Amino acid sequence: MQAVKSTLPDTTLKIIGEAMQGALVDLVDLSLVAKQVHWNIVGPRFRSVHLQLDDVVETARTHSDTVAERAAALGLPPDGRSATVASGTGIATVPEGWLRDTDAIRTMVEALGAVIVRMRERLDDVGQVDTVTEDILIQLTKDLEKHHWMFQAENAG
Amino acid sequence: MQAVKSTLPDTTLKIIGEAMQGALVDLVDLSLVAKQVHWNIVGPRFRSVHLQLDDVVETARTHSDTVAERAAALGLPPDGRSATVASGTGIATVPEGWLRDTDAIRTMVEALGAVIVRMRERLDDVGQVDTVTEDILIQLTKDLEKHHWMFQAENAG
Amino acid sequence: MQAVKSTLPDTTLKIIGEAMQGALVDLVDLSLVAKQVHWNIVGPRFRSVHLQLDDVVETARTHSDTVAERAAALGLPPDGRSATVASGTGIATVPEGWLRDTDAIRTMVEALGAVIVRMRERLDDVGQVDTVTEDILIQLTKDLEKHHWMFQAENAG
Amino acid sequence: MQAVKSTLPDTTLKIIGEAMQGALVDLVDLSLVAKQVHWNIVGPRFRSVHLQLDDVVETARTHSDTVAERAAALGLPPDGRSATVASGTGIATVPEGWLRDTDAIRTMVEALGAVIVRMRERLDDVGQVDTVTEDILIQLTKDLEKHHWMFQAENAG
Amino acid sequence: MQAVKSTLPDTTLKIIGEAMQGALVDLVDLSLVAKQVHWNIVGPRFRSVHLQLDDVVETARTHSDTVAERAAALGLPPDGRSATVASGTGIATVPEGWLRDTDAIRTMVEALGAVIVRMRERLDDVGQVDTVTEDILIQLTKDLEKHHWMFQAENAG
Amino acid sequence: MQAVKSTLPDTTLKIIGEAMQGALVDLVDLSLVAKQVHWNIVGPRFRSVHLQLDDVVETARTHSDTVAERAAALGLPPDGRSATVASGTGIATVPEGWLRDTDAIRTMVEALGAVIVRMRERLDDVGQVDTVTEDILIQLTKDLEKHHWMFQAENAG
Amino acid sequence: MQAVKSTLPDTTLKIIGEAMQGALVDLVDLSLVAKQVHWNIVGPRFRSVHLQLDDVVETARTHSDTVAERAAALGLPPDGRSATVASGTGIATVPEGWLRDTDAIRTMVEALGAVIVRMRERLDDVGQVDTVTEDILIQLTKDLEKHHWMFQAENAG
Amino acid sequence: MQAVKSTLPDTTLKIIGEAMQGALVDLVDLSLVAKQVHWNIVGPRFRSVHLQLDDVVETARTHSDTVAERAAALGLPPDGRSATVASGTGIATVPEGWLRDTDAIRTMVEALGAVIVRMRERLDDVGQVDTVTEDILIQLTKDLEKHHWMFQAENAG
Amino acid sequence: MQAVKSTLPDTTLKIIGEAMQGALVDLVDLSLVAKQVHWNIVGPRFRSVHLQLDDVVETARTHSDTVAERAAALGLPPDGRSATVASGTGIATVPEGWLRDTDAIRTMVEALGAVIVRMRERLDDVGQVDTVTEDILIQLTKDLEKHHWMFQAENAG
Amino acid sequence: MQAVKSTLPDTTLKIIGEAMQGALVDLVDLSLVAKQVHWNIVGPRFRSVHLQLDDVVETARTHSDTVAERAAALGLPPDGRSATVASGTGIATVPEGWLRDTDAIRTMVEALGAVIVRMRERLDDVGQVDTVTEDILIQLTKDLEKHHWMFQAENAG
Amino acid sequence: MQAVKSTLPDTTLKIIGEAMQGALVDLVDLSLVAKQVHWNIVGPRFRSVHLQLDDVVETARTHSDTVAERAAALGLPPDGRSATVASGTGIATVPEGWLRDTDAIRTMVEALGAVIVRMRERLDDVGQVDTVTEDILIQLTKDLEKHHWMFQAENAG
Amino acid sequence: MQAVKSTLPDTTLKIIGEAMQGALVDLVDLSLVAKQVHWNIVGPRFRSVHLQLDDVVETARTHSDTVAERAAALGLPPDGRSATVASGTGIATVPEGWLRDTDAIRTMVEALGAVIVRMRERLDDVGQVDTVTEDILIQLTKDLEKHHWMFQAENAG
Repeated sequence: MQAVKSTLPDTTLKIIGEAMQGALVDLVDLSLVAKQVHWNIVGPRFRSVHLQLDDVVETARTHSDTVAERAAALGLPPDGRSATVASGTGIATVPEGWLRDTDAIRTMVEALGAVIVRMRERLDDVGQVDTVTEDILIQLTKDLEKHHWMFQAENAG
Repeated sequence: MQAVKSTLPDTTLKIIGEAMQGALVDLVDLSLVAKQVHWNIVGPRFRSVHLQLDDVVETARTHSDTVAERAAALGLPPDGRSATVASGTGIATVPEGWLRDTDAIRTMVEALGAVIVRMRERLDDVGQVDTVTEDILIQLTKDLEKHHWMFQAENAG
Repeated sequence: MQAVKSTLPDTTLKIIGEAMQGALVDLVDLSLVAKQVHWNIVGPRFRSVHLQLDDVVETARTHSDTVAERAAALGLPPDGRSATVASGTGIATVPEGWLRDTDAIRTMVEALGAVIVRMRERLDDVGQVDTVTEDILIQLTKDLEKHHWMFQAENAG
Repeated sequence: MQAVKSTLPDTTLKIIGEAMQGALVDLVDLSLVAKQVHWNIVGPRFRSVHLQLDDVVETARTHSDTVAERAAALGLPPDGRSATVASGTGIATVPEGWLRDTDAIRTMVEALGAVIVRMRERLDDVGQVDTVTEDILIQLTKDLEKHHWMFQAENAG
Repeated sequence: MQAVKSTLPDTTLKIIGEAMQGALVDLVDLSLVAKQVHWNIVGPRFRSVHLQLDDVVETARTHSDTVAERAAALGLPPDGRSATVASGTGIATVPEGWLRDTDAIRTMVEALGAVIVRMRERLDDVGQVDTVTEDILIQLTKDLEKHHWMFQAENAG
Repeated sequence: MQAVKSTLPDTTLKIIGEAMQGALVDLVDLSLVAKQVHWNIVGPRFRSVHLQLDDVVETARTHSDTVAERAAALGLPPDGRSATVASGTGIATVPEGWLRDTDAIRTMVEALGAVIVRMRERLDDVGQVDTVTEDILIQLTKDLEKHHWMFQAENAG
Repeated sequence: MQAVKSTLPDTTLKIIGEAMQGALVDLVDLSLVAKQVHWNIVGPRFRSVHLQLDDVVETARTHSDTVAERAAALGLPPDGRSATVASGTGIATVPEGWLRDTDAIRTMVEALGAVIVRMRERLDDVGQVDTVTEDILIQLTKDLEKHHWMFQAENAG
Repeated sequence: MQAVKSTLPDTTLKIIGEAMQGALVDLVDLSLVAKQVHWNIVGPRFRSVHLQLDDVVETARTHSDTVAERAAALGLPPDGRSATVASGTGIATVPEGWLRDTDAIRTMVEALGAVIVRMRERLDDVGQVDTVTEDILIQLTKDLEKHHWMFQAENAG
Repeated sequence: MQAVKSTLPDTTLKIIGEAMQGALVDLVDLSLVAKQVHWNIVGPRFRSVHLQLDDVVETARTHSDTVAERAAALGLPPDGRSATVASGTGIATVPEGWLRDTDAIRTMVEALGAVIVRMRERLDDVGQVDTVTEDILIQLTKDLEKHHWMFQAENAG
Repeated sequence: MQAVKSTLPDTTLKIIGEAMQGALVDLVDLSLVAKQVHWNIVGPRFRSVHLQLDDVVETARTHSDTVAERAAALGLPPDGRSATVASGTGIATVPEGWLRDTDAIRTMVEALGAVIVRMRERLDDVGQVDTVTEDILIQLTKDLEKHHWMFQAENAG
Repeated sequence: MQAVKSTLPDTTLKIIGEAMQGALVDLVDLSLVAKQVHWNIVGPRFRSVHLQLDDVVETARTHSDTVAERAAALGLPPDGRSATVASGTGIATVPEGWLRDTDAIRTMVEALGAVIVRMRERLDDVGQVDTVTEDILIQLTKDLEKHHWMFQAENAG
Repeated sequence: MQAVKSTLPDTTLKIIGEAMQGALVDLVDLSLVAKQVHWNIVGPRFRSVHLQLDDVVETARTHSDTVAERAAALGLPPDGRSATVASGTGIATVPEGWLRDTDAIRTMVEALGAVIVRMRERLDDVGQVDTVTEDILIQLTKDLEKHHWMFQAENAG
């Protein structure tokens, strides 16, 4: 079934398809990781970081929806199912159980760092073929890099 | 590390812990399944069901947060990581790719039905030991049964 | 036509069905009675009670919708038609024409009292078989008993 | 008890009184009929029509309040009690139980059609004697005719 | 200086001009009278009537602005200066100093009654020549008659 | 295809149909003309008139939707396509390119004046046969005459 | 009837009573003058000044209510009736009919200037005896002097 | 521990400290008294006064927070604990149990009167040494005197 | 004076009365304790915990109102006066003066822990006799246990 | 008259001017076409698509304003007059009269497809010379491609 | 050019002019300093203090606008240009580059302390000559002293 | 101290660092210049331009925050201190004292023109190395060019 057709050429769609699918998996997992840390964090910075993590969840959920709907808009059905996310994510497994706030912050610095590296690669690929899709990657990378700064700043000084 | 202590006895906490962890996994997966169908649905009822599915996502996200924070409040660290969700969910795998609206609705009827059966079992277990936690399960079962009706009604007639 | 199926056993559904249908009729009539008094009240407390009655209307409308949709969610089609309400209501007929404020308040004390007695019986019946439906009756009884107090307080002193 | 006095002559008040009382009964019943269908509808257009019916409920409730308070403002106590509504309504009885969406829409086309015919007669009568009251009938007829179109459009094509 | 020109004939404008100027004066004074009573009322119904009077002020201010701008829109400069209002108002002088609530309500019943009689005469005059301006008089008379009912209802019973 | 049927007689519908279609074309063009001037105006009153013009756009868009839906509600399919608007509008062509603010205001005085004259004719025609549709024309004429005054006032003094 | 008693000494109350009554009259008249100019202004700055005048109306209405309720709070019944305002105002009579924008602005500069001078005298008197009432005069003088600047700035340059 | 240091001299701080601590205790108790009456009032004015009392609660809570934070801001740790409030309040004990509305209003007139007398003394003391803190006392006295008027007005007439 | 009558038996009312009165005292004192700590906390977590404490205040105020009005609704006049609260509270006295953030958090862990233990006993008692009142205790215990977790989490790790 | 000057070179402005003017015409016509279909659609999906079309209208109106103001900002007066739109649009003429929902959806798929093709050409041209203007075309193409997907999805399956 | 004239004597204006100009410079620089620290802070309290600093920015911006407009209102043109601010500020230079959170807080304690000392001097000067302007200084000093406390509290304990 | 690390290469960071620092200085000064003119403008367009300038302030403040936080996010501590702004700004010094509206507008045309030229150079530099940062410059240039048009349009015609 070819439900939706794009006016873009197939080679372009192939590059976009891979980038969007990869971005979707990373963003869905980022939302789950941030919630996991949001629930399990303990330590003197509990409340401050607990709230900060919901900002990350909000960012990840909003952009994952935009990415998935962009894929669909180009005739490329997105896959955000839990098994696909679990096996394809670029984020290292978070340890289970309570997490001290310093560890929580380091976990987020690493998770965001890993996703940013992959997003910048997708940005390079997609920027060659479609500036419209590229813009979606620019916006989400900008937000991820902002969160990355905030968690780094919190562990520095 | 025993970060948070509840005043409830250990046997009670064990029952609640299993119920909350099971409910969390089902609700997180329900939110992912509803988004998957939201993105991949096609057919004459596309727009109406596309919007309806975001209501399910909202329900699943809100209750999963409540359930996880209830577990944490009782000293039971919740696990909502993607691998845990993928392996522990009570919802059957949704097929990948475009999904006709009739299939989409049947998928949701079945997914909601499966989760409701498991939630009612948890309700029976928890109702024996803690009415406070029971109330959380009552509220979410009520909402899930309402969504279940709406998708059934849409496939009937 | 069996449009919607519940996972609950038939004996449970029978008890819930009677309770929900009875509650629906009482609540719809309560909303009509409160509006009738809202329009026909006269006397020095006109404005204060006129506004208070719209709070009752709001309560009755909101809960009647919840009750009817709960019945539907369990596969039990609700009946809120005017003839059904007129013949099945537990509230005594309000006299037609202008109503002095003291009479208006006494009318509401009696109407709420009658409905509360019936709701508490339904609560007992349903509490035996389904805590999810029971919660709906708990919430509405709580609100009705609060309104009951306010009208009693207004006639006392 | 003559609680409220209008400056309009008695013959005018008699005509307005009959029109307002008739309009009130029809509008209250329309709100009950629309809710009945809202709860019992099944079929592929369930969600779309379910939501549409609440727009009709909102219209009917708002205008019934305006009509009843207009009668009161002219010294004519309105009667919106369930028995009065059940016996005086111009809308044919809706069958009980689940209602297929096509039947639901046809039910609303007929109910709205019946009410519109009666409202236009009231408009003719009242327009002769009081342009202030006439305006209330103009506004509600406009809204009813808009809903009538929408349900007709949904059954056509 | 003929700043603004209407397309309506001069005889029509003359009738409208008188009606609008008269309505403006009455409405401005009504807003001042209602405020005067709002500040000076005492007695067991103080708070309820104090709030009700601000609803009258709101009505009077809104409609006076509409009426004055309607006059301006037709090239007829409106006059709402205090001396014009004081000498031209159709409302009897309110006594100075504290006002018992029963007297306050009677004052408002009489003030509203006097204004309504004059507005209905303007309605008759303007209805002959311009339905657009007539509509402004219909809307404000409807609101004034509603307030009139409420104050009457409060003194009855 | 006779999709929607009105209860009004054919002769009435013919008069309303012509009035609504004419009003629709004028209002759509008014919204385009006001936007054209909004974008091209220059001069010392740029900002003030630029904002004022968006009020006209809002008025024209809202009423054009009401008019078109009124036609549809009576079974008369409206035509608001660009070619129909371009050929049928009662507004003279606006010159292309930058427009000095004095010219911009004069353009709007003339455009509004032309539309008001045509609307008053439609008001006379429709007022004979349907007070419900007449009310729509009354409301929009009232708003157009208010805008007409404001642009005239701005060019006077 | 001595309805409300203040704890302040009589000599203090006498000074406050005169200041509040004078301030009330000036502020009510300022609101009427600003509306009068709002309706009758013509000229190239029509829209900008028309809007600015409603800011003055808002200021005058809000502070007049505060002043009157302050008097009442101290047991001094305020008098804001139209005849009292017309005879006691410190603002010179505004000419009737259309007002060129330059004249409108000069009118407001003068009206505000006259009121400010009188308010500063009241401020001096009341500041000697009651800092609570003084604060009300400080706040309103601050707002009046801000409006005064804006109208002066508009006429300068 | 000297956690926070003010730039004001010690004698000034001593005066402010006593005034703020006294004001805090009175305001916290006023909020508790107003709630006590809000819950226990009965009689024909139940609803009107019940709502009015929550306005007093809101006033008392807001100003008590401002007062306590002003003390803290000047390096003076405030004491709003229940035992401190119970022993230090300037308000006479309210009788337990249901309270007729007339008694309720008299209770509030007395409670507000007692607090106002003490606040005016603090105002005199603080006004000598710090106009910034004085302003906080001015604002709260203004609000308390307004509530005092309203309850007096309700018992008069 | 027996102002308000409940339909529940006296033995039931006695149990509920004790539970509600006890809950009211604890909740009012919790709101005062949380405000006391909110004002006196110092240390590196000042701002974060200062804000968190206002969430506790909000919770305590809202539930204390619900509890008191539930008692009133059942004909049991509640007692929330400062002396009653000071002598009956289950929360240990908070030391006066500045409070280091670590001490502040420990104070709240202990205060919440003490109240939770007492609320769970009330829950057991009331759950035997009235599910409607029980629900109020369930909701507030749920919120208190959530706050308890957050303060514990902040002191752990 | 050269009212507004850009810092960009003339060759760049020429390319941007053509792109903006073309985009403006297409977007204005898209808003008119979507409204035309919004009013004339009939069939079982009437309500769902009727609402969906207003989302397209909103998109088209917002972007047309942005495009026109971008042209103006660069010194290029935009032309959005009805005759210009009717003759320059890239969208095929929509048939007059009622439109079945399937035809309505197909009409929108084609209209959006035609506009997207032209927008992508403009994107290529402008992307060579000005990234600021290019961004405007990226944003609107993204939105148009999203609407295109939704209408395609609705016709598939 | 003497654009705006005050009614106050020249000696008064001279004192106010110096106070307002000094306050303006300090407040504008405070807003820049708070933003500088907001961007450059690092350390475990990053997020909490980062947010707190925007509250200071908001305070400083709001009061600087009030102060500047007060000067203008009295005919004294304010000077808030960057060079004037840089040379006239009473706040010591903040070091460039990243700032540890402890240093950031100490920086703000000192900056606020310096500004408060100068504001209290201005308060003394202006309080002698104009209570209206004095009130502006009272309000801003109150807010600055509150921020001062919060930063001190954060460094204490 | 290297608090925050970016994944971008050093040469890229150097280019971005210079662009962001330059943009920050220009935007902060633009906000101060626009406020300076906002306070000192006089003449017939006072109110209109006074309001327009606050739109510029809002734009400059929002983008300066985004630019500074982008620098921080890439590990480049931004410098927005008053001395840095005063010495590094690209905007010519605004004359002190009252400013006629024509001069005010010309001042803004020149200030915006100067900043736009520098921003376009930064756009060229950054566009070579990082599309994410480039997007920030695109958005702010777009807004600045829109303001530039509006002030030019106001001086033309």
